[in-house]
Amino acid sequence: MMKALTYLKPGVIRWQNVAKPKLLKSTDVIGKLVATTICGSDLHIIKGDCPESTVIAENNPGRGLILGHEGIIKVKEVGSDVKKFKPGDVCIVSCITSCGSCYYCKNDLQAHCMNSEGTSGWILGHEIDGTQAEYMRVPFADYSMYKAPKGISNDSLLMLSDILPTSYEVGVISGQVKEGDTVAIVGLGPVGLSALIGAKALNPKEIIAIDMDDARLEVAKKLGATKTVNPSKTDAVAFVMENTKSADKKPGVDVAIECVGVPATFEMCEDLIGPGGAVANVGVHGKPVSLKLQDLWIKNIKITTGLVSAYSTADLLHKVIKGDLDPSPLVSHHFKMNEFEHAYDIFKNASANNAIKMVLTNDN
Amino acid sequence: MMKALTYLKPGVIRWQNVAKPKLLKSTDVIGKLVATTICGSDLHIIKGDCPESTVIAENNPGRGLILGHEGIIKVKEVGSDVKKFKPGDVCIVSCITSCGSCYYCKNDLQAHCMNSEGTSGWILGHEIDGTQAEYMRVPFADYSMYKAPKGISNDSLLMLSDILPTSYEVGVISGQVKEGDTVAIVGLGPVGLSALIGAKALNPKEIIAIDMDDARLEVAKKLGATKTVNPSKTDAVAFVMENTKSADKKPGVDVAIECVGVPATFEMCEDLIGPGGAVANVGVHGKPVSLKLQDLWIKNIKITTGLVSAYSTADLLHKVIKGDLDPSPLVSHHFKMNEFEHAYDIFKNASANNAIKMVLTNDN
Repeated sequence: MMKALTYLKPGVIRWQNVAKPKLLKSTDVIGKLVATTICGSDLHIIKGDCPESTVIAENNPGRGLILGHEGIIKVKEVGSDVKKFKPGDVCIVSCITSCGSCYYCKNDLQAHCMNSEGTSGWILGHEIDGTQAEYMRVPFADYSMYKAPKGISNDSLLMLSDILPTSYEVGVISGQVKEGDTVAIVGLGPVGLSALIGAKALNPKEIIAIDMDDARLEVAKKLGATKTVNPSKTDAVAFVMENTKSADKKPGVDVAIECVGVPATFEMCEDLIGPGGAVANVGVHGKPVSLKLQDLWIKNIKITTGLVSAYSTADLLHKVIKGDLDPSPLVSHHFKMNEFEHAYDIFKNASANNAIKMVLTNDN
Repeated sequence: MMKALTYLKPGVIRWQNVAKPKLLKSTDVIGKLVATTICGSDLHIIKGDCPESTVIAENNPGRGLILGHEGIIKVKEVGSDVKKFKPGDVCIVSCITSCGSCYYCKNDLQAHCMNSEGTSGWILGHEIDGTQAEYMRVPFADYSMYKAPKGISNDSLLMLSDILPTSYEVGVISGQVKEGDTVAIVGLGPVGLSALIGAKALNPKEIIAIDMDDARLEVAKKLGATKTVNPSKTDAVAFVMENTKSADKKPGVDVAIECVGVPATFEMCEDLIGPGGAVANVGVHGKPVSLKLQDLWIKNIKITTGLVSAYSTADLLHKVIKGDLDPSPLVSHHFKMNEFEHAYDIFKNASANNAIKMVLTNDN
């Protein structure tokens, strides 16, 4: 047996005894968790926002679905077709499970893998058991894990499972942030701050951080924001227009990265961009937004959305090794795994607790 | 004096005597029109949808603004700084006036030229006198005209002023249509049919043409659409999903090109694309649309909009010369310039008259 954090029904999670996982396919790996963390998506599942997870929890009587899609493992067993890993290897588990051979996996759209054990590439802690446990099974391990280099902290490595590639691919790369650009980041929760770290590595001229929480704006400044604005006190669109006036370009930012997931912040991004600009939507949305095409059609703009595909993970790991970026400041709290339920309580009130990312280590 | 088609006030145009244009700047060219055409944007101006044009018309007592932004001219006079053209040259006049030196002109965003004589790169027949006249002035001629090669029909050349680059840049290139793709074109007016011709040149596997008018669907078939669907008779989204089922990809098209400019057709495009897909909006919109981010955020999609920058004109001209594409079937009607008012009457009821593009020649 082992301990795991399971989702039993909307509102109910438990740190409980469950059976240890076994190899099911020849491409699987079984690993012992070194550390894991909690993501905003886990909270969505617990709220009942992901019906597929609810069904899986209900179909596991006695225990629910093991949550979590971020983790570092020490490999214990490998299936007969696993080529890249052997027992003893310490690895980053990607939040995206990729078969490596379907149309989507071959085209950097692993988010939509056709052969994962679920409806998308995000199956861990969503449609199959995840990383918030003492042991886990990783399907298609050869395409879904990265060997952890020596000398990099667990805090940094854990950020490579999901939050850093998500904010980098869906925000920074899709928005095509480049040297000299002016970038606005709307929403400075964990994903927004992570987008800031990723964008900073590409040397934009200006990063304008926008959030209603002054404490988060302070964190953003420390992480490299060149300007901050609190829209509960200042008209953020007017502030950005005033601060992007120049002789050679029309006002507005080159890239606005949306990291909240509500209509008001997306619509603010529409207003922030100048001609030729981009809105890169990273937020998870629950309802439609109003797209002001009457103003935007003529502006040569681009809007992108997406679930991470984790095609950038190897590149980001390389940047972390070289020191080009350091995601470890995203970790605000450390716990042991047997404090999991408490850690969730802290994370549920992230803003009041100044919580960004929580790291939970397996000391067993 | 010369004759020109001027816009006097909303609803009123007139083929009338006006003064011939003169060189105003050293980068200007004066040309005699060989032929011109009428664009849907001209109808927008006449309806009063472009307040800037209305103001200019009112400020020209006795005659209004000369309409038109598409034309072929024979060069008569060149300013002292014009390097590429000399009297006698026959040239395509681009709908976009580009200074060639500002940030936008250097970055293929000539639509937003900082130094044009107006608020954007589209000034001809919009903020200054245009092409629907016997003579015209072309500002920044070196960056805003293309020498007409011998042996290409006026019908083809005229399509290079606006409609072909517009549909190609804003639809086909922004949507990143590539060999093997499945493309939907929603709306088969002149721009939609032109997008079809441009997309076809890139060898997509399938072009699904969507329009409520069966006659236009027939034209689309002749121009290379592989499937057609009339949404007034068939559920177009269901049709597309059924026809894009495959073993290796999820349903939906790779690129949906919106060529109408109303919420219903844009929102249809949102429903037509598969994971990783793109909506390229070419339509000119007058009101906001509903963007279904609750479904789209996870699909890794891209939405683009824009006014043409005409950066592709030279490439398109080359494709026409090589025979890779032929825009001449877009021309449905030929008139002489003194029939201008009648040509407008026909074009205002384009669908009833099976009108696509009208060519008007200057026989004076």
